[in-house]
Amino acid sequence: MIIYKKAILPSGFLANGVCAGIKKSGKSDLALFYSALPAKAAVQFTQNKIQAAPLKINKRHLKESRDFRAIAVNSGNANCFTGQSGSADAVKMAQYVAAGLKIAPKKILIASTGIIGKRLPVGKIKNAIPELIRGLSAKNVDKAKLAILTTDKFTKGITAKINIAGKTVTICGIAKGSGMIAPNMATMLAFIFTDADIAQAALNKALKTATGQSFNCISVDNCMSTNDTVIVMANGASRNAPVDTHGSFNLFSRALNLVCLELAKMIVRDAEGATKFIRIRVDKAGNFKQAKQIALAIANSALFKIAVYAESPNFFGRAVAAAGASRADIKEKDIKVKATSLKRRDIDINVSVNTGKSSATVYTCDLTHGYIKINAEYN
Amino acid sequence: MIIYKKAILPSGFLANGVCAGIKKSGKSDLALFYSALPAKAAVQFTQNKIQAAPLKINKRHLKESRDFRAIAVNSGNANCFTGQSGSADAVKMAQYVAAGLKIAPKKILIASTGIIGKRLPVGKIKNAIPELIRGLSAKNVDKAKLAILTTDKFTKGITAKINIAGKTVTICGIAKGSGMIAPNMATMLAFIFTDADIAQAALNKALKTATGQSFNCISVDNCMSTNDTVIVMANGASRNAPVDTHGSFNLFSRALNLVCLELAKMIVRDAEGATKFIRIRVDKAGNFKQAKQIALAIANSALFKIAVYAESPNFFGRAVAAAGASRADIKEKDIKVKATSLKRRDIDINVSVNTGKSSATVYTCDLTHGYIKINAEYN
Repeated sequence: MIIYKKAILPSGFLANGVCAGIKKSGKSDLALFYSALPAKAAVQFTQNKIQAAPLKINKRHLKESRDFRAIAVNSGNANCFTGQSGSADAVKMAQYVAAGLKIAPKKILIASTGIIGKRLPVGKIKNAIPELIRGLSAKNVDKAKLAILTTDKFTKGITAKINIAGKTVTICGIAKGSGMIAPNMATMLAFIFTDADIAQAALNKALKTATGQSFNCISVDNCMSTNDTVIVMANGASRNAPVDTHGSFNLFSRALNLVCLELAKMIVRDAEGATKFIRIRVDKAGNFKQAKQIALAIANSALFKIAVYAESPNFFGRAVAAAGASRADIKEKDIKVKATSLKRRDIDINVSVNTGKSSATVYTCDLTHGYIKINAEYN
Repeated sequence: MIIYKKAILPSGFLANGVCAGIKKSGKSDLALFYSALPAKAAVQFTQNKIQAAPLKINKRHLKESRDFRAIAVNSGNANCFTGQSGSADAVKMAQYVAAGLKIAPKKILIASTGIIGKRLPVGKIKNAIPELIRGLSAKNVDKAKLAILTTDKFTKGITAKINIAGKTVTICGIAKGSGMIAPNMATMLAFIFTDADIAQAALNKALKTATGQSFNCISVDNCMSTNDTVIVMANGASRNAPVDTHGSFNLFSRALNLVCLELAKMIVRDAEGATKFIRIRVDKAGNFKQAKQIALAIANSALFKIAVYAESPNFFGRAVAAAGASRADIKEKDIKVKATSLKRRDIDINVSVNTGKSSATVYTCDLTHGYIKINAEYN
């Protein structure tokens, strides 16, 4: 497996990003990912009971169609809590893109991120689509990476290449964060493109596994978003021997896990206001669920996160107090907490609870003045 | 019922507060509450699985004794996650106070609040006890109120007087906050004193009910403390016809509810860095539990709290997103959110979810730069 710390689109994929005028800042805010070949798609959505309009439209398209050709994404507006008008706007967004690409709307998936509760300016999206489609190219994935950002400070992309029976298969992921990041998932969008030939069931299984070990193991602020979406598109362009649930599946699954985990870590590194990247590993727990509960309870403790920000020895007591407040069954005398120096930018916290043999790792960041400032001013 | 917005100790109670030198700041840090008559006690503890040493000692004393004479409280050090040495220190603290008062140690209850993970300086406590006891008086409850504070900006006291068959019964509560405040309870200590003559079972029931409607309905930062303790002492000095579980019980219970709710609201008003007091009422929920889940999910959303701080219209979408992330069963189309102007210091948020007839109210505050600053610098 070869890893590239940038987005390299696999065979048959094109992308572009433009400024449609949705963001007040005038920054780019509309992205398109296009597959020249019909592609299978697997999707993971937020578990928030309030789901934004594009998620509802995607669920309908996933029922109506077995293959997909494009993903259209806007930033600056989440099209959430916008009621039936919002759903109609999401339908229009897919229709406009479909008309431009001359394909059926049901073959389009969409995503929106940004402010909640305001109508999506679909007229602006419609006007920008000709330019968006004209610029589609493999190279313009860099423009697409930019156009999906909200308060992110940097773009996020990674590529893994694997060899399946003599054919090179590419898996390329791009993502955006960077607040309202909580398990499960977050105001995070991730789009993964592969030229693998893979059965639908295998693709679904691989994405579910990868999401569980990556995007569902990060927390910035314990605020679960209404828009979280992870989509993988597989167009088969590499003409590999089909990835099945044996042999080559394990290799593909490992590569997809790695792509998702690296994107998840980038999201945490770029979290709003973060100055520290914190890895919390819980060992010797009764089972994986309890290990993860303890790790997340610490990761979500505002007091713990502020102590790390301040490089204060209070982090220790606050981590223990947070672990005790979790639902996991633990005893004070069994808890051991070790940490690398808080002076560093990357901090490892190791917690041992002596109730079993299971481990879990979650990733989080510190809670800072920057986080407050960004979220007070965001509009 | 007559309410006084200050602490007026009932008959037979004395108090004092002194500086034992536990706090680096040199502020007062040791308080004593004393009853001249043996008093019944009821106690509610934190639900954190990590419990500080004084809680363990209190649980032992509550098994060993039916009546109590004093509560000793230190601030500046929580005596938590201090292991067996910490338990030994807590035992010593009770012993020193008992020796000074010439009563059995099992008739003493204790409480500690402050930094976690450091040994309690029991020598300093021992040295301060003679002065602490010499100064015991009804008036010095004001010194006691001060000595239990940590980062609180103001002292918290309230008194209710009721008439039971011709006798005046006084219920006086004092408390401290002001961070790590989450349901259930918080790094909060509350001590309530009454001269009522009341059966043990009735006292237990009244405190449990009052706590459920007050201290367990507030959240500052969703961080559950290891030291939360609410104690009520009833010494019977008013010689009222005993409060039973009928008639006079309802009056007593209402007065205790009111004392606890007012203390809980003061804790929220004085929360670390808070600039806004937020009442969140959820109506038309399927049951009380779901109503409270929704209200607390909103109260604990960092993004919602920052939006209120910033007086930003984003509060609306963030409240809805938080409600959707709760465990309660709700649908987007049924959610209505109304709020009074965010410009005011006191803000009412009313959420209607149209799934039933139950309501719940919780109290919280905004999340501000002040909160970060206080908790980064606390040591």
